[in-house]
Formats: sequence, structure tokens, C-alpha cells
Amino acid sequence: MIAYAKRMKKMEYTANVVKNLFGSMTDPQIISFGGGAPAKEALPIEAVRQIADEALRADTRGVEALQYGPIAGIRDLREVVIDVLLKPKGVECRMENVMIVAGGLEGINLICQAYIDPGDVILVESPTFVHSVEIFDMFEATCVGVSMDEGGLVTEELEEKIQKFRPKMLYTVPTFQNPSGRTLGLERRKKVAELASRYDILVLEDDPYRDIRYGGADLPPIKHFDRTGNVIVANSFSKIFSPGCRLGYVVGEADAIAHLTDVKSATNSHTSMLPQILCAEFFKRGLFPAHHKKLCDLYRERRDAMLGGIDRHFPPGTKHSDPEGGLFTWVELPKGIDTAELLKASTSNPEVKVAFVAGEGFFTERDGRGRNCMRMSFGSNPPERIETGLQRLGDLICSRIAAV
Amino acid sequence: MIAYAKRMKKMEYTANVVKNLFGSMTDPQIISFGGGAPAKEALPIEAVRQIADEALRADTRGVEALQYGPIAGIRDLREVVIDVLLKPKGVECRMENVMIVAGGLEGINLICQAYIDPGDVILVESPTFVHSVEIFDMFEATCVGVSMDEGGLVTEELEEKIQKFRPKMLYTVPTFQNPSGRTLGLERRKKVAELASRYDILVLEDDPYRDIRYGGADLPPIKHFDRTGNVIVANSFSKIFSPGCRLGYVVGEADAIAHLTDVKSATNSHTSMLPQILCAEFFKRGLFPAHHKKLCDLYRERRDAMLGGIDRHFPPGTKHSDPEGGLFTWVELPKGIDTAELLKASTSNPEVKVAFVAGEGFFTERDGRGRNCMRMSFGSNPPERIETGLQRLGDLICSRIAAV
Repeated sequence: MIAYAKRMKKMEYTANVVKNLFGSMTDPQIISFGGGAPAKEALPIEAVRQIADEALRADTRGVEALQYGPIAGIRDLREVVIDVLLKPKGVECRMENVMIVAGGLEGINLICQAYIDPGDVILVESPTFVHSVEIFDMFEATCVGVSMDEGGLVTEELEEKIQKFRPKMLYTVPTFQNPSGRTLGLERRKKVAELASRYDILVLEDDPYRDIRYGGADLPPIKHFDRTGNVIVANSFSKIFSPGCRLGYVVGEADAIAHLTDVKSATNSHTSMLPQILCAEFFKRGLFPAHHKKLCDLYRERRDAMLGGIDRHFPPGTKHSDPEGGLFTWVELPKGIDTAELLKASTSNPEVKVAFVAGEGFFTERDGRGRNCMRMSFGSNPPERIETGLQRLGDLICSRIAAV
Repeated sequence: MIAYAKRMKKMEYTANVVKNLFGSMTDPQIISFGGGAPAKEALPIEAVRQIADEALRADTRGVEALQYGPIAGIRDLREVVIDVLLKPKGVECRMENVMIVAGGLEGINLICQAYIDPGDVILVESPTFVHSVEIFDMFEATCVGVSMDEGGLVTEELEEKIQKFRPKMLYTVPTFQNPSGRTLGLERRKKVAELASRYDILVLEDDPYRDIRYGGADLPPIKHFDRTGNVIVANSFSKIFSPGCRLGYVVGEADAIAHLTDVKSATNSHTSMLPQILCAEFFKRGLFPAHHKKLCDLYRERRDAMLGGIDRHFPPGTKHSDPEGGLFTWVELPKGIDTAELLKASTSNPEVKVAFVAGEGFFTERDGRGRNCMRMSFGSNPPERIETGLQRLGDLICSRIAAV
């Protein structure tokens, strides 16, 4: 048998974690708080159908939709990014600073391709999004965790680790973080941008949940505080439009975008045209604001059901984060509960049948931390189903504690 | 400024060649025989609109189209690959042997990610498809050219170079090759599969033009002769359905596909769902055979216009390949004509305004070979425009020869 590349060995562990992440989504019997999929009620099916019906004609955008297109993405979708998604958040940029990619994760992949050599150190939050770590492993980077508290990444420790490890890059999900639901505070955002400039490291700001805030005051992206071009943004249309379309964008210095365009060309030529056109038209026709309100109302209600249900049904000593947006909360159970074992029990027990993601896989330290933690996604179930799932899961946890 | 990864230096040359390849497509004044885009008349716009209109509903495939999907692609499109595209060509395979990717080039990228370490030798045809070489350069492989004649890759030289360079992989476009239009003969196909087994190297069979044959007898893919799992196929829906949709497929051993699925997950999660559904329905509804006939009739007529026009208008001593399918012919001008200079003259001269791709960029040897050659694409212009372009270009070439 032909030998695989060395990088395949390096990514084995995280590839398995990622597979398990999505595995539990397939059994319809299970109430799943795993995965990170948006609600099916949040998908703008009818609007997309109408746009497709108008765009897919020889005298409208039919040829454009089916023919080869520009590597960096179509012009009107890049305009949406600049005018609708960045400018109101305090990030000013031009066409040459933006490229369209096939989802936020592809943005991360391309940035690694352009910047990461094997052995480079990438600082990540502890816990961090394991799917991104799978990418970092594939590029044979060394990930080093930086602690978080309720205010996000601890910037004092960040500076120490920059000094100690001389990293190439910091990877952060600053808003409603995956998996923790935590948000990096305003002063820390300034501090991260400042440290990136001072130590000349790249900050990869992955911010897909930012646009679904349904409580609290908005915060500017780290990119807003970047004066030296050290911050590069990878963002996604998955949570505000459609994940199945695989659309995202990268924002950075013109030279960085030019290099990323070469890398994109050598990855898959360009992003699929029809999804780009549908998404651009969706925004350009002014359909986003009402859709956005609907999303926020939907997820706020589900978050409330999730946090209330955890408080009601989980054992005393349970802690959880208090997200003002996004799709996740992070739960820390009393010590001694192993959530990987709990997951096995809760998915196989016919009276429970509840899935979530066990915490340990989100830590790059791989020293057992996170073993009593779990990521709970509240995006894809209605409130009553969330309540039912939490009641069953809470009973199981309490019975296991009683048995100890 | 943050340093780019080492691989970026390695891919600089080919990235520029690829950019020039597509650059001349943007000026509408120019008659372009550059690029490799299918005819706009070959895009099934109306069929796609009708399918989208039916599929994008809450009670049909609307949720599936906009929600996250399977990493390896949707089941019905993989069935199309197995039953419609592979079986009739003499390649038997199962679901676990097929994955859907975002275009044929992405298939090549993922295969490199899974198999190629820096410094690995990849044998390529001489000339070869420069966009693939851009990918090989990004993965820091060393490309070594193997000569072609009118029957494709010369297998005696292939074996010598396998022995001499101990390559990891052979990259070949066996049918209506890009850029040469040449096709690997039957006995050589068997020989390539046999050499791959004997020396245990991977053969990457990139075969996007195979399905637009409009003359001569069909030939089985190299994969048909593979008894040891050494051949992996990367193919594309770009030429038979739509390039803008970015859809392709990879066919290989189950273990290879499992590894490629991990790599796909760490590249962009999965291929855009709506294009997959549209393409699967297009085939499942039986729309392909009539569309296929239309494509073949269209391209046959354009090929005849191209080959006849070259014979009529180009100077004595000009040679060209005689493709029975695909979109390209390869032209060798009399020695002394530098096609890179000719291209500059022909695109800037307001009385000519004709583009093509200069030959030198298709050779990995970079020793000047191909300097008097050019790739001529006949896919995207109707016969009368081909005739006009060739007349103008022929006059320019003849005047330059006269001036020497």
C-alpha cells in the first residue's frame, strides 16, 4: 500500500474527535445537543428558491452561475461583506482586502496553507474549536493552549506564552466562542491587537457567531483595533444564511489576500458560483434584517430553555457559561463525572437517548482537562425538546452521582 | 510583515502562469482561445432552474440543500458516479470508493494533502496541465517530466524515470490531454497500470475530458486495468454539467477514500449542497444523454473549425494534434517563433486581438522547451469567430516569419 503523507499521522486524533462530533447527528431517535448546526427553521428556503428562479435564466445571471468565476469571489458578495457585515462593526476595508471562500473553515485552511510551516507554534484558546485544531494538525503546527476565564482569553497568560513559545499565530474565536459560549471583553480585544503588533504575530480572528447576538451590547472585532495588519479575519455565512452553501470570507491586508488567492486557486479554483449569487442577492434585496431578527428571537428562546433546564435538572455544583449569542453553552459537571462515558451511556440507554459533545476533545493539552465538561448546542431543537432532553440527561447524571 | 510559509515561494512561478492563463478571458474585445471554459451554450441553465424550483422547498430537498451535509458528498450524486459515469467505462466500484469534491482540482489538492510530503517526486507528462503543477508546487513536490508523442505518455521513458527517480506518484491526463489534446493508447493504459503495481507508485488519473468524445472509439480508463489499488481517479463535472458549480469526484480504495474524507473535513467540511443536489437530479431525471449529444455536436463542429482554420491560415511547417474529443489542440509553430512574444503582440495589436496560451508554461523542465508552442482552446467560440480569430492570428504569425 502506498504510504500516506506524514501529516496524516499528526491529524489522526483530532480527525476522530471531529468525526464523533457529527456522528450523533445521524440517529433521528436521539435528542442531539451535539453538532453545531443552525436550526432548520433558520434556513431561508423560500427566499432562496425565489432568487434562484429569477437568477437562473440566460438573460439574468444563469451563465454567470454555471460558468467559471473569479478566484476571489463575485464582486457583489464582496461588497456585502464590506458594506453590510464589516462597516457597521467598525472595520473599514476595500475590495482588495476581501476574498470569498467555501466556508469559514476553508478560510482557516487557506490561511494555514499561506502562513504555516511544519513545527510553527499556534496559540489556541483552552478549550478551543477542535475542527480548527484538525486543520492545524494537518499543517503539522504545534498547538499551545492559553487559559480562558468568563471574560475569554486571559491576556496576561497570552503575553507570557508569546514570549515563551514565539508563536507564528494566535487562533481565537472571540465572540460566543465555540465550544465555551464565552466572549472576549472590550479591553482584552484591544490588548490582543496590541500584543499582535508588538510581537509581530498573526491573529486569526474566527468570528462566525458574532452576528447572532440576542442580548447585551455589541463589541467591535479585534480587527477594528488592528493598526499594523496583524489581524486576519475568517468568517462564515453558515450561521446567518446557510451552512450547506459553504460560504465564508477572509479579510486582511491586500498582499495577504493576493497570496491567499494563489492558494485558493491551487485548492479548488474558486467558490461555487450559484451559492455566491444566491447569498449576494439575499443581502442586496434587503432580506437580511428581518431574517436576522427571526434568528435572534429563535435562538434567544432556545438559549433560555437550555440554561433554565440545566439549572433545573443538572446536579448541584454544575456550572455553565451565560452566552448572549451564538449556539453553545459550556457545562462543567461536578468532578468525577467523565463526560465521554456519560455520552456513551446517554446515547445507548433507550430511556435517555441524548447526545452532546464531551469536553476533553476541545483541549489541545490532552492531559485529561475538560473530562467533566461538555459542549451543549441549543441551536437545532425547539424549547420543549430541549427541556425533555435536559430532564432525561439530568436524571442520568444525578443517578450516576448517587451511585458513586 | 508576517512571513509566508516556505511553500509560497515554491509556487510563485506556476501561480503566475495560471493567473495569465485566465487573465486574457476578461477583455470582451479579444477572441480568446485561452482559458479552458466550456461553451456558454453548453450550460444547462433552464434545466437547472427547473430542478432548483422543485428542490428548494421545505417539503422536498430545501432543508438538505441549505443545511450541513455529509463530508463525502450526497448519496445520490455518488450513485450517479458509480452507475452512470464509471460502470459503462468498465470501472466497478462501491459507495465507499467514491467521494464528491469541489471540482477536479480540489480532488488533486486533497490527494496531495493525503499522500505528498515535501520533496516527493511526481512524474508528469511533458507538457502537462500547469494548474495541477501549481498544486504540486504548493505541496513542495519535485515534478519530473516524461515525454509524450502522438500516442500520449511514452511508457518506456516512464519506466526509466520510475527506476531513476523513485517517484511517489505519476500524474496523467490520459484522454484529450490538457494542454496537448492527445490521448493515451490502449496498450499504454495497460502498461501504466502494470508499472504502477510493479513499482508500487500511485497513479493520479485526471480525466475530465473523457466524457466529451465526439469521434473515434472509446477507451477504458487506466483505473479499469488496476488490480492492486494503485490508481486513484480525480474527475470533474465541469465539462459535462457546469464548471461554476465546482463539482468533481475521487475514486479509489476504501482506505484511501477514508483518509481523503478526513482531509476534506479539514479543507472545507464538505462540498456545497445545492450544486450537488442540482447535478444529481439532472442525471437522475435522465437529462444527461440529450445534453451530452448536444455538447458533442457543438464541440465537434468547433474542433473542425479550429483544425481547418489552422491548416488554412498558419504558416507551412505548423503542426497540431488531432483530438477526437475535449476542448484543446496543441500547436507547434516553426522554430524561432516565441509564442509568449506572439501573445503580447496579438493581444495588444488592435487589428488582431486574439488570445491563446503560450506553450512554455506547460513544461516543468523550464529549459525553453515549448517556446514555439501554444495551447488553442476551441470550446468557447462559435465556428465563424474561430475562423476570424485564426485568420487574424495566422496573418500575424506569417508577417513575423517574413520579417525574420
